[in-house]
Amino acid sequence: MASHHTSLINGSFDQTISATDRGFTYGDGVFRTMKIKDGQPVSWPFHYQKLVADCAVIGIVCPSAELLMCDIQLLFPIDEFDNGQVQVVKIIITRGEGERGYAPPAVTIPTRVLIKSAMPTYADAHYIQGVRLHLCDTRLALQPKLAGIKHLNRLENILARMEWRDESIFDGLMLDHDDSVIECTMSNIFARVGKQLYTPDLNACGVAGITRQRILGLEALLGLNTHITTLSLPELFNADEVIICNSLYGAFQVTAIGDQTWEQQTLASTIRNILTHG
Amino acid sequence: MASHHTSLINGSFDQTISATDRGFTYGDGVFRTMKIKDGQPVSWPFHYQKLVADCAVIGIVCPSAELLMCDIQLLFPIDEFDNGQVQVVKIIITRGEGERGYAPPAVTIPTRVLIKSAMPTYADAHYIQGVRLHLCDTRLALQPKLAGIKHLNRLENILARMEWRDESIFDGLMLDHDDSVIECTMSNIFARVGKQLYTPDLNACGVAGITRQRILGLEALLGLNTHITTLSLPELFNADEVIICNSLYGAFQVTAIGDQTWEQQTLASTIRNILTHG
Repeated sequence: MASHHTSLINGSFDQTISATDRGFTYGDGVFRTMKIKDGQPVSWPFHYQKLVADCAVIGIVCPSAELLMCDIQLLFPIDEFDNGQVQVVKIIITRGEGERGYAPPAVTIPTRVLIKSAMPTYADAHYIQGVRLHLCDTRLALQPKLAGIKHLNRLENILARMEWRDESIFDGLMLDHDDSVIECTMSNIFARVGKQLYTPDLNACGVAGITRQRILGLEALLGLNTHITTLSLPELFNADEVIICNSLYGAFQVTAIGDQTWEQQTLASTIRNILTHG
Repeated sequence: MASHHTSLINGSFDQTISATDRGFTYGDGVFRTMKIKDGQPVSWPFHYQKLVADCAVIGIVCPSAELLMCDIQLLFPIDEFDNGQVQVVKIIITRGEGERGYAPPAVTIPTRVLIKSAMPTYADAHYIQGVRLHLCDTRLALQPKLAGIKHLNRLENILARMEWRDESIFDGLMLDHDDSVIECTMSNIFARVGKQLYTPDLNACGVAGITRQRILGLEALLGLNTHITTLSLPELFNADEVIICNSLYGAFQVTAIGDQTWEQQTLASTIRNILTHG
């Protein structure tokens, strides 16, 4: 029997949060999105570790892994997965309710929200050939104190995403204030040059996703040397191969950014295979 | 009979919003805080005009002034104001509910939230002598596409506000990424040098509050020339007089920022008088 519940809030089936929750009034929280397969969150140790780390950056004590796993089991009963279906959970942790004013209350109880959604369907062409990117005009501002974490302040991504409506565009490439390549609106990015695999440094802006982190750990399996570096747009355009990644689709090859194009190659599918089966 | 309702959501007495509201999931919205006196929002034309303009920056169609005035009248019945009491309303406008993903739905219905709170009580010393500021370590990132608007992405202000717990500190002064003075966590700032009154340019970051805007319009009454400019910390420290402002307290003189101090002067009280009675 499939559950008709689509969200769980502080352990209860509910669809609303308090209008005075600081997640709503200030974006004072963090989130993660991950696949649920056979009732279990995929790559959970990576996701939970990242959730704890992101919470810590803004001074929130993350709920325990046990509590969140219990939430996941409530929202995703195992009998929903009989047909091998994959679902998606978004976990949001906020600082909790608060009075007006930026100072957090002396005592806060974090709010935990789980939202269920269907696994997006990606076109076969994305897997086989790859995807096209829009080069966004919206830049990522430099904020070292929030860089790397997936917080609820996402207006830059929204403005960037609003720049295109062409459905043949999969994601938008974002540069920072200093013209460096950083990421896409919902993906991290890698550039391969020969046996070297580069991904942008996210110490001043961007979200350091766990698929990026996992790919950085695949050096030996991929036979590539990985590097976290400053990456300019000309350097990206000169790369032999460009891929993007996130926790839902794994990895896709980039075939075009504006007029710059790349021929179909194999790194993205190799990475997808390793991430899924490795 | 005083209303026991503390919030109004899309015109209904309610205290919760949908967990899939984009204001919650992404901070995709804007807000304003203002005084309510005798059931009427103070400086409403300024606030509503700013709300419309801020919504427009991120592509939200602001609800009509008539609808919001109707909301205010529902939440603040006139008989609550018999004793001359002043209350506070925070008006939040979000893009509305949305599915997972940064792209706004093709059709969105903005969510409007009004939250009632008591007027804060400020110490007599703040009015008579002035206030002390903390110099924040947290910098404001440069983001011209969002500069000036009061959006729901407020993590920088929160991190800045979490830097001090000393109750004798009233607000925190924030510089930008390039070391320019911008604003305080909940206030705008002005520096007077002789007959010149300077306030920072907010084209790359900061919130352009309506009290700042009103003060900029007081040139003739104050006998000062006002300027929007780049302002360094040494320039601020060398000013003859420094004041901060917002819609609730009006204006306060700054008496100290760290070791830098200023003698008690009259500009803040003059401005308060004009803003209240002028």
